[in-house]
Amino acid sequence: MMMKNKRPLILITNDDSVGAKGISVLIETMKNLGDVVVVAPEDPMSGQAHAITVTQPLRVRKVSEEDGVSVFAVNGTPVDCVKLGIRVVLDREPDLLVSGINHGSNASINVIYSGTMAAVLEGCISGIPSIGFSLLNVDAQADFTACVPFVHSIAQKTLQDSLPNGVCLNVNIPDLHTSEIKGVKFCRQSKSKWIELFDERVDPHGKRYYWLTGSFEQDDLCEDTDQYALNEGYVSVVPVQYDFTAHDKLAMLNEWEKEL
Amino acid sequence: MMMKNKRPLILITNDDSVGAKGISVLIETMKNLGDVVVVAPEDPMSGQAHAITVTQPLRVRKVSEEDGVSVFAVNGTPVDCVKLGIRVVLDREPDLLVSGINHGSNASINVIYSGTMAAVLEGCISGIPSIGFSLLNVDAQADFTACVPFVHSIAQKTLQDSLPNGVCLNVNIPDLHTSEIKGVKFCRQSKSKWIELFDERVDPHGKRYYWLTGSFEQDDLCEDTDQYALNEGYVSVVPVQYDFTAHDKLAMLNEWEKEL
Repeated sequence: MMMKNKRPLILITNDDSVGAKGISVLIETMKNLGDVVVVAPEDPMSGQAHAITVTQPLRVRKVSEEDGVSVFAVNGTPVDCVKLGIRVVLDREPDLLVSGINHGSNASINVIYSGTMAAVLEGCISGIPSIGFSLLNVDAQADFTACVPFVHSIAQKTLQDSLPNGVCLNVNIPDLHTSEIKGVKFCRQSKSKWIELFDERVDPHGKRYYWLTGSFEQDDLCEDTDQYALNEGYVSVVPVQYDFTAHDKLAMLNEWEKEL
Repeated sequence: MMMKNKRPLILITNDDSVGAKGISVLIETMKNLGDVVVVAPEDPMSGQAHAITVTQPLRVRKVSEEDGVSVFAVNGTPVDCVKLGIRVVLDREPDLLVSGINHGSNASINVIYSGTMAAVLEGCISGIPSIGFSLLNVDAQADFTACVPFVHSIAQKTLQDSLPNGVCLNVNIPDLHTSEIKGVKFCRQSKSKWIELFDERVDPHGKRYYWLTGSFEQDDLCEDTDQYALNEGYVSVVPVQYDFTAHDKLAMLNEWEKEL
């Protein structure tokens, strides 16, 4: 429904909702690289991971169309947005999918809970070069200024060279001033994880309820990890794939077959 | 809050809800192996993947306690159930987490959308030996009889030998009679995926809406895949891990650092 020329077609989504500051920065940055179509959730979808909506119908609302940017909102998850974007909204396959800029880290184990990165993985499953961007600041009014040159250069490089089949990028940006960021490091996902706690409360009717809280424990800070790079002031880029198989354990577990 | 003796403590969850037939079969089978505590969603949560509930409080409702089995229902996702199960409901770490028996396949790419397998991965992240079981039949009244001996033997073997650190199991069972199942195969996740479609409809007010549909395309049927094993009448077991890094692409992408 949109393309008139040969500029790259860029699909943008996120999990903080179509109205988030981070996505507006991403849109402004991507306008310089191609024609932009935004398909993002109506409402914040943090922590929605790879959830899809199967028990209720989805709706696509056209929010705006100006400066060559079309914006659509969907009453679903980030992954719903990618599926609808590709199958319903766009009339050809996008050249690039970018998600974010997320308000908060998606480094380390956060990738598994992240709606931002789930959208990126969904793009990757569909064969589209896909990148997720996150700033290490959860504030709704966070300053994304330092992100812009890195978002631009990583997206431009991906448009130029593409990505290996089945691989997408998880880019995290430290919450520093531009001059303080030391550069970009390609890394592996750190094995650090959350120590969960539940804040137990009692409602006015005497019934207990729980809020999920927790602290992030940095227990894998090897020099080749995203967490280390971020702590040192680098932008971390993890190449991400969606084969969950523990290939290195298959031979050992094959031994079990005789006993089952 | 529950354990009085040295029998293994088994935490059970699923994504089809606490009332599903599949979880009742799993409970009956696990009772023979240990003390059972069930913490499962109040409502069906298919396709919820690794979603967590962060914007509303969670409640834990005690459903029943009989025959040494305690059952709790949570107004959240499968991953919420695991987190609450470990941190709030149980007074010690379980020896085993089992999830399912899912009504429908979690082989191949389904693992990424699956609430059943997200619960298993969450147990694994928490250091608990964890297994997901799925039957290739989505019917609410599916016949789980043929699953029972495999569920029992794989859970027993896992209690006996444990699993490598950071690895859990994704077990899928073909929808066949017991005598037709040829055995158990350890495999890798097939690269087959869904071809999505959206069923477009118009509501009584003239507004368009969409239902997600699609067909599963078996485009990776190599002999070492879960999909091949299932098609051949075997129970497939994929050892699963949660490091998303595309390690084999890191060296190549490191070359980008100079240009960013």
